This record gives sequence, structure tokens and C-alpha cells, in this order.
Amino acid sequence: MADYLGKLGASVKVLPSPGHPNVLAEFRADAQVPTLLIYGHYDVQPVEPLELWQSPPFEPEVRDGFLYARGASDDKGQLFAHLMAIEAHLRGAGTLPLNVKLFIEGEEEIGSPRLEPFIAAHAADLAADTIVISDSEFFAEGVPSITYCLRGLAYVEITVRGPTLDLHSGSHGGAVRNPANAVAAIVAAMHDSRGHVTIDGFYDDVLELSAQERAAWATLPFDERAYARSLGLEALTGGESGFPVLERRWSRPTLDCNGIFGGYTGKGAKTIIPAHASAKISMRLVPNQYPEKIIAAVRQFVADHTPPGLISSVEDISSARPVMLATDSLAMRAASSALEEAFGGKTAMVRCGASVPVTELFQRLLGLDAVLMGLGLPDDGLHGPNERFKLDHLFRGSHAAAAFMQNLAAVIRG
Amino acid sequence: MADYLGKLGASVKVLPSPGHPNVLAEFRADAQVPTLLIYGHYDVQPVEPLELWQSPPFEPEVRDGFLYARGASDDKGQLFAHLMAIEAHLRGAGTLPLNVKLFIEGEEEIGSPRLEPFIAAHAADLAADTIVISDSEFFAEGVPSITYCLRGLAYVEITVRGPTLDLHSGSHGGAVRNPANAVAAIVAAMHDSRGHVTIDGFYDDVLELSAQERAAWATLPFDERAYARSLGLEALTGGESGFPVLERRWSRPTLDCNGIFGGYTGKGAKTIIPAHASAKISMRLVPNQYPEKIIAAVRQFVADHTPPGLISSVEDISSARPVMLATDSLAMRAASSALEEAFGGKTAMVRCGASVPVTELFQRLLGLDAVLMGLGLPDDGLHGPNERFKLDHLFRGSHAAAAFMQNLAAVIRG
Repeated sequence: MADYLGKLGASVKVLPSPGHPNVLAEFRADAQVPTLLIYGHYDVQPVEPLELWQSPPFEPEVRDGFLYARGASDDKGQLFAHLMAIEAHLRGAGTLPLNVKLFIEGEEEIGSPRLEPFIAAHAADLAADTIVISDSEFFAEGVPSITYCLRGLAYVEITVRGPTLDLHSGSHGGAVRNPANAVAAIVAAMHDSRGHVTIDGFYDDVLELSAQERAAWATLPFDERAYARSLGLEALTGGESGFPVLERRWSRPTLDCNGIFGGYTGKGAKTIIPAHASAKISMRLVPNQYPEKIIAAVRQFVADHTPPGLISSVEDISSARPVMLATDSLAMRAASSALEEAFGGKTAMVRCGASVPVTELFQRLLGLDAVLMGLGLPDDGLHGPNERFKLDHLFRGSHAAAAFMQNLAAVIRG
Repeated sequence: MADYLGKLGASVKVLPSPGHPNVLAEFRADAQVPTLLIYGHYDVQPVEPLELWQSPPFEPEVRDGFLYARGASDDKGQLFAHLMAIEAHLRGAGTLPLNVKLFIEGEEEIGSPRLEPFIAAHAADLAADTIVISDSEFFAEGVPSITYCLRGLAYVEITVRGPTLDLHSGSHGGAVRNPANAVAAIVAAMHDSRGHVTIDGFYDDVLELSAQERAAWATLPFDERAYARSLGLEALTGGESGFPVLERRWSRPTLDCNGIFGGYTGKGAKTIIPAHASAKISMRLVPNQYPEKIIAAVRQFVADHTPPGLISSVEDISSARPVMLATDSLAMRAASSALEEAFGGKTAMVRCGASVPVTELFQRLLGLDAVLMGLGLPDDGLHGPNERFKLDHLFRGSHAAAAFMQNLAAVIRG
């Protein structure tokens, strides 16, 4: 990233961190024009299960108009659309319509755990009039979308320990409490039969959906059956009974087991009582829930549900606060019309069930509501095998990014 | 095995099977003396987790009077005591006191799935007056034991499938039913809060413990706290409330999760809804339960507990019927006094929670109740890391095996 940005003419700094380094770059056009900060991330999700990839995840391959690779959409491809826009302005006009800064981090996929002190310490470097992030997606093909609310995250790993070593389940079965059965019971107890999360206080701080939003969402072109089929499902039976699918994905908090493991996991039979078993549990949080409060409630829940004779622990893996952004800013309008110019159609204002932790940090630490101008599509396969990015979205996305800079320069004074 | 037995003077056959071959050997002493069949197995359990072994599992190492290796006790060491006894008789007397056959298989640890047709087809080769199996253990150090009842086994793997691919748990969490949560819920539902198995009909055929056995077990030197501590536990909270520990291990059926796996199981966070998740579930059965009936009940249970929107399957991995043996035979008495001669102490008649599937097959197909003359100790660490066999038990065990042949020749006519 640093090399590439340097070749485009930016002044670039690679700032080491205890984890992956941060890249800061600046294209200075003029002291009189406004400054845009573009955020992206160069890190990606793990690629496993590798055997399900049709081409190697780190050898990009174009098939049928899509670029297949890990990170193609999340977030290298979406970020690259902005680099193409910068290059286009520089080649065409010889200069950018505004000052542009870039901030590219490498720990988004682990929840940006070290970003809060970094942003606080580099507030001057990051100072801007507007921030844009392309790390989200269209509501549907043909429906350009700006996201105004992201769910937060609380991710924990629960471990239950029993005997010192794996034991013969014949000799000891019936005497020894089984940690794998116990972890299953703890995870199972986290939902009731109607899909509601049973952790004490889980819903206490949930901001209820406004009537205005509910009405707006009803007008979105959402085909529930097509969405289910695109995932290989007959029906959408996750989440809480009594809420429509979009609310369950966007405005309701959820709890999912992202991984569960213990004992023998190879082929065939091994007759053991495992010494320990674990579950990775993540909760998606909505305004106004706080991860710290939710994780404390999970710790209490796990302690209360650990059977006598076993020992449990809860490790805090990562967290991010939910964020709600103002929808009526000049920057939002500039992005909306840029998307419409590049893609056609009318830009929808949507929420998103996922987290982009930096968004909340920008709001809290820099006082800026970022514009989430997603360029991906719902079937890009983020986080899974065969992640892809539609090349048409890369090209039109760079058009939208270039138009956004132009629009922004016209409406905001530097 | 075949080479070693050949060198000792046996006529040996290695009989191929679709799996691991069977070794049959015969030392023919005299047409007028009885025939003893010794059964053992050369296969072992998987060695994982390898990092917990103090020395490599397949490089036997002697430390403090114990031989450490996978199979040291289960079942190579215990079988070897009989080979030493044969060698001792041949070197000392020049002949064996009776005809000795050996039958050594290689699939005991996967439940001897191909043994039933093999035994039926080789009934003449295996014909004997008495069968001895050393693949069990002393009740405690200093308490030689003969096992008269073994639990059976029904081992299944449950898989729950949802979306075609792992999905982003932020984007889709709340819409998509999670297979990992579902498999946890299925496993959790298999027990009630008092540790009873909830599968319909599970206890229907259980043979209740006789008053005589209950009284005999009460006289066994069982230190519950020492047993718990030897496993690294504060308390024995497994199995059904309301039954003493020995009954929970020996005369009550149990259900254990031997492995559970799904989703991301590496370090840190991956925020996915897994496409599928599985659990390996084994049930230890007691007389007069039948594995076929129990597995059918499990299939129904899993179908009934699979949430809408997901698909489940139950794979039958292995099974063995429980077996109850006559305790008052001449062979049992010959074994009992041989153990007392070699080890001192009084031989206890015990049950065992584990399975040795061939025992039931010998009873059903050959009409012979085997003598289960265990030479192991409860802390040999079967199936786990650092499995070991006490060398003193190997030496005294070979003495007991030699004395058993002598005693048997004296009381049984060939």
C-alpha cells in the first residue's frame, strides 16, 4: 500500500503498532479546499476451509466478470476503487479536487483492538472535513446504498475444563462430568425456544426501531425467498420469532456460535471424555448496547450455567460498539448522488448487521460521522470461501468515488 | 505378532480382512488335554493430543517402573504377559500344560466391526474349552479382579447442516439458523437437569442391579475422593443423580459427547455462521439394552430436535452389545486362584464400564463365556496421553497367566 500510494504521489508514513502497522498517506491539493479522509483495511479473514476454494485465495482469478480472491471485496477491492479515483483525477485534471488523506489499517478483521489509542494519538494526522469508508455493500444488485447504522460486536471464547486428561468414556462414563456436554448445554441455554437470547439484561439497552425507519425498510426491494435460496436455505429461521428478517439482521442484537470444539474431531470413533471443550460466541449489538456490559453479563451467565465439578472461563476476544450516523449531512448527499451518477438507480439508506469498528471510533474520537459508501454486493461471499468482487462494481465504484470527491469539493468549504 | 509367535513354535496364520488382518496361532500340546483360546488386540487408540505425551507414543520408554507407550496396557502389554507365560512353560517343562490357541485382532478400538462374520466363519479354528482375555484392569492396586459384565456401546456422529457456505455472522446473524448452536442444543437436550438421558425409551430394557451384586460392591475398597483426585477432579458429578458412583460406571447406561466440532476453531475470532457442525455421541449400554434399538431412538430424537431450516443426519459409527458372564465356572475359579497366587490378595468379581466387543461375540457365536483376567491398573491412562503399564504387573501377570494354564489343565478335561 505504501509503495503504491508513494508512486501515485502521496507522502506516506508506515506507523508501526504492536500488531500490524498502519499506513497514513496524504495528497495535498490546496490549503483552501476541504480534506477527505479515506479509510480502508488491508487485512483479511482466515481462508479456511481451503478445500472449498475453486482457485487459491491469494492468487486472484477473474471468472465471468468477477475477481475471486480473499479480500477481493472485503476490503482490498472496495478500497482500490478510491485509489483508481485518485489516479483518474490526477491523470485527468493533474490535481485532486480536494485534499485527500488515506488511513489503511491491518487489524479490522480482529476488531481493530489497538485502534482507539492510535486514533486518539494521531487525531491531527487524521483531521479531515469528511471521512468515507467503502467496506459495506449494496442492498441488492442495482440498489446503491449508504449505511447509517452498524451493529457492534462482543466476541468471547468459553472454555470448560474437567479431568486433567482425556478419559476413557467406558471406564469413567457416568462418574465424570463431561466438558463437551457441558459446553453444549451452556451454548444451548443462551437461547430460548423462540430464539430470544436468555442472558440476563441482554435486551435492556436496545434502542427500538423508529416507525419512520420501519416504514422506509418496508419499501426496500427485499425478496426473502431469493435471499434464503442464495444462501442455500429453504427458510430463514434464525433470530427472534416475531421480528421481520431485516429487523433481525439490522436492528436486533443476535448471538451466534462461531466455532465449537472439544474432544476427538477426526474420522470414526474415539471413546473419550474430553478434558476440555470450548465455544466461540459472538454477539452483534445494536444502539445503545455496550460490549463491556454484555460481556460482563455473559461471564455471569456462564458461571451460573457451569455444572458442579467443572471449571469454566470466558476470554474476551474482541469487541466494538454499535454506531448510528447522521443521515442528512452534506457529505451523505454528495455520496448519494455520486453513487446514482455511477450506478444509476436511487440510493437507499440502510443499516448493516456487521461491524466496522473504526466508524464508531471516528465518531467518538474525531467527532466525524463517516460516509459508508459500500461498493460490494450481498453475494460477494465475505469471510467465506470464493470471496469475489464484481469487476463492474470496481469500475463504476471508482467512478462513484471520483464523483464523490468532485461533489464534496463543490459543497464543503475547506 | 505372527513372526514372534512363529519363533515361539506356534503354527500361525495371518488372515486378511477388509480391514486389519487377524492373527490365528496354535500351540498343539496333546489331543488329550483341553484347549485354551487367548484373545488380544494389536490395534490402539489414536494418540492425539500428541503434545501432552512426555515421550513419543510409539517409542516405549521405561520410567519409574512403568512402560510408557500407546498400547502399553491396552492391549499389547496385557497380551504379552500371556506370551511370556507360554515361553516360560515351553522353556521350563518343554511343553504346554494344554493346547493353546491365540486370536489377535486389529480392530478392537473401532468396535470390532467385522469380527462377527469372521468368528462365525472360523468357529472351528477358534474352538476351545476356555477363552481368556486380558484387556481389563484390577479394581485397585492390590485387588486382582475378574470382570463378569461389560457395558456395550452405541456410537454415532450427528451432523447438522445449514447454509451452503460459512456466512458472515454480522451480515446474516439473526436471519440464518446457526448449525453450531443447533448441534449444541441437540446434545444439551439429551440429558435432563439430573443427568438422566432423555432419549425416548433409553432406559426401557435396563436390567436392574441385583441386591446380591449391590451388597458385594459395597464391600469393594472404593475411595471415591481418591478416584476423583486421580482424574484431577474435585467431585464426581457425572451420570445420573441418585445412583452411587460404581453403579453409574458399571450398571447404568450413559451418554457422552466424545467430540464436538464446527465453525472456526483456530486462535482468536472469525465471525462466521458455520455451514455445518457435528457431535460424536457414544452411549454405554448395559444388559439387556440393544445398540440397534438405542440408535433408532437417537435418530428419532435428533430428527425431533432439529430446528426448522436445518438438516440433520445421524451416522452409525460403531456398536457392541453388553455382555453378562457366568461367574461360577471352573475356568473363573482357575483364573481367580492364579491371580491370587501371582499377586496375593483376594480376587474381586467386578463389572466394567467399557466394552470388549469380542466377549459378547464369543458368548453368542461360540457359546463360551470368556474369563476376563485383567492385568492393568485403573491409572494406566488408557485412550489418553502417557498410557503406561506397570512392569510389576507385566511380570506378575505372566506368572498368573502361566498358573492359569496349569490350574485349567488340572480341572478341565480336553
